[in-house]
Amino acid sequence: MRARHKPWADEYLNKNKDIIEPEPKQFKGNWKSLFESEKPIHLEIGTGKGQFIVGMAKQYPEINFIGLEVVKSIIVSAVEKVKETDIHNVRLLNENAENLSELFAEGEIDTLYLNFSDPWPKNRHEKRRLTFPAFLEQYKAIMKKSGQIILKTDNRGLFEYSLTSFSKFGFVLEDVTLDLHAEDDPNNIKTEYEEKFSAKGLPIYRCVAKLKS
Amino acid sequence: MRARHKPWADEYLNKNKDIIEPEPKQFKGNWKSLFESEKPIHLEIGTGKGQFIVGMAKQYPEINFIGLEVVKSIIVSAVEKVKETDIHNVRLLNENAENLSELFAEGEIDTLYLNFSDPWPKNRHEKRRLTFPAFLEQYKAIMKKSGQIILKTDNRGLFEYSLTSFSKFGFVLEDVTLDLHAEDDPNNIKTEYEEKFSAKGLPIYRCVAKLKS
Ligand SMILES: C[S@@+](CC[C@H](N)C(=O)[O-])C[C@H]1O[C@@H](n2cnc3c(N)ncnc32)[C@H](O)[C@@H]1O
Ligand SMILES: C[S@@+](CC[C@H](N)C(=O)[O-])C[C@H]1O[C@@H](n2cnc3c(N)ncnc32)[C@H](O)[C@@H]1O
Repeated sequence: MRARHKPWADEYLNKNKDIIEPEPKQFKGNWKSLFESEKPIHLEIGTGKGQFIVGMAKQYPEINFIGLEVVKSIIVSAVEKVKETDIHNVRLLNENAENLSELFAEGEIDTLYLNFSDPWPKNRHEKRRLTFPAFLEQYKAIMKKSGQIILKTDNRGLFEYSLTSFSKFGFVLEDVTLDLHAEDDPNNIKTEYEEKFSAKGLPIYRCVAKLKS
Repeated sequence: MRARHKPWADEYLNKNKDIIEPEPKQFKGNWKSLFESEKPIHLEIGTGKGQFIVGMAKQYPEINFIGLEVVKSIIVSAVEKVKETDIHNVRLLNENAENLSELFAEGEIDTLYLNFSDPWPKNRHEKRRLTFPAFLEQYKAIMKKSGQIILKTDNRGLFEYSLTSFSKFGFVLEDVTLDLHAEDDPNNIKTEYEEKFSAKGLPIYRCVAKLKS
C-alpha cells in the first residue's frame, strides 16, 4: 500500500487523539475502558486506509473496533475516514503486529481480521507473513478461547500457506471460500484492496479459523 | 462416470481373479499376503477406469496399490488397463467405501487417495461426500498413524467442504494447492477426470491431510 510522505502527519495524529491512541500500551488489559461502553472488541491487523474498519463500525454498532496499521502516512487516511463519520466505536493504533502481546491482554480480543496482508512470496520472507506461527502464537495469546480469525486475501500463495499454517498450529478451519464474491454476502464489507481486485475479476479467498475447543 | 452396461462383466471379472479379488473381506488384516512381496499399501477410493492407479503402480514399484470402485461396468475398464501392462502391484476391489472397515484392519493403509470424488453439492446429500465425517472415521481406522490422505478434485465446493471437514475432524492439512498444474510436478499422475478438466483449463485443487501426531 503506497502513500505519499506526509510531513504534517505527526501534528495531525496528535490533534486526533480521540481516534488514534498515542500511548496504546497503557491500555493493555483495559481497552474496554477507552470506549464509551463495554462491548466485544474486534481487531484488524493492517488496517490500511480504513475502509473496512469504518464500514464494519457503522454496520455493527454493538462492537468496538481497533485497527492496527504500522505505516503512519497510511493510518492518516484511516483517521480522516473515521472523522468523516460520527461513529465512536473505532480506535486506531499506529503499531506493528509484532508487538501485539504488549498491547493486549489474554482473551481481550473476540475477532481478529487479517485483510489482504502483504503476501511475502519468497520463502526467506516466510517469517514476515502475518500467518507465520510466531504471529499465530500472539493472536492465540490475546484471543478469547471462543474467538476467531477471519482472513481475506486475493493472493493464492498466502492463502494456501495460511490454511496449512492455521491447521498445523491447531486452529480449526470453520469456513473456507475460494470465491467470496460468488456468494454475494450482503454483510460483507469490502476493503480497499478487495474492491480493487474484485473489480478486476480476481477471486477473493476467505477462511475462518477458530481455536480448538 | 458413465459406462455402458456390460452383460459379460461378471464372466470377465471371474476370469481375472488375479487382478480383481472376488472375496476381499477374507483378506482383512492380511492384504500384504496377497501381493508378491510385502510393501506399503496405498488405497484409492473411486478408482474409475484405472488410469491413476496403473500409472502410479508403474511409477512406484516399491508400493502395492489397491483400488476400490463400486460400479462393476466401470471397474471392468480398470481391469483391462491393468492387463495391458505387466505390473503385479495392483489389486482392484468392486466394493463400496462404506464398507472399508470390513475390508481393512487398523493401520493397514499407508496412503489413501480420493480422486475427483462425486461432489454431491446438495446439502441433503452431504453424507454421501467421501469426506463426510463418517468416512473420515473409517479412513482413520484403517490408516497408519503416520499415514496420509491425498485429495484431488476439480470441484470447488467439494474442496472447500473437505478442507473444513478434515480440519474439524482433527486432520492437519500439510499441503494445499489451488492450482496443482501451475506447479508442473513431473511426478503427478493424472486421473481420467483430471486430464479432461485440466484440458479445459480448469484448476485442479489438491490437499494432503495427516493425522495429528
Ligand atoms: C496490502 S495492504 C492491505 C490494506 C487493507 N487491509 C486492505 O485490504 O485494503 C497491507 C497493510 O498492512 C500493513 N501492515 C503490514 N505489516 C504490518 C504489521 N506487521 N503491523 C501492522 N500493519 C502492517 C501495511 O502497512 C499495509 O497498510
Ligand atoms: C467422478 S468419478 C472419478 C473417477 C476417477 N477417480 C477419476 O478421477 O477419473 C468417481 C468414481 O468414484 C466411484 N465411487 C463413488 N462413490 C463410491 C464409493 N462409495 N465407493 C467406491 N467407489 C465409489 C464412482 O463409481 C466413480 O467411478
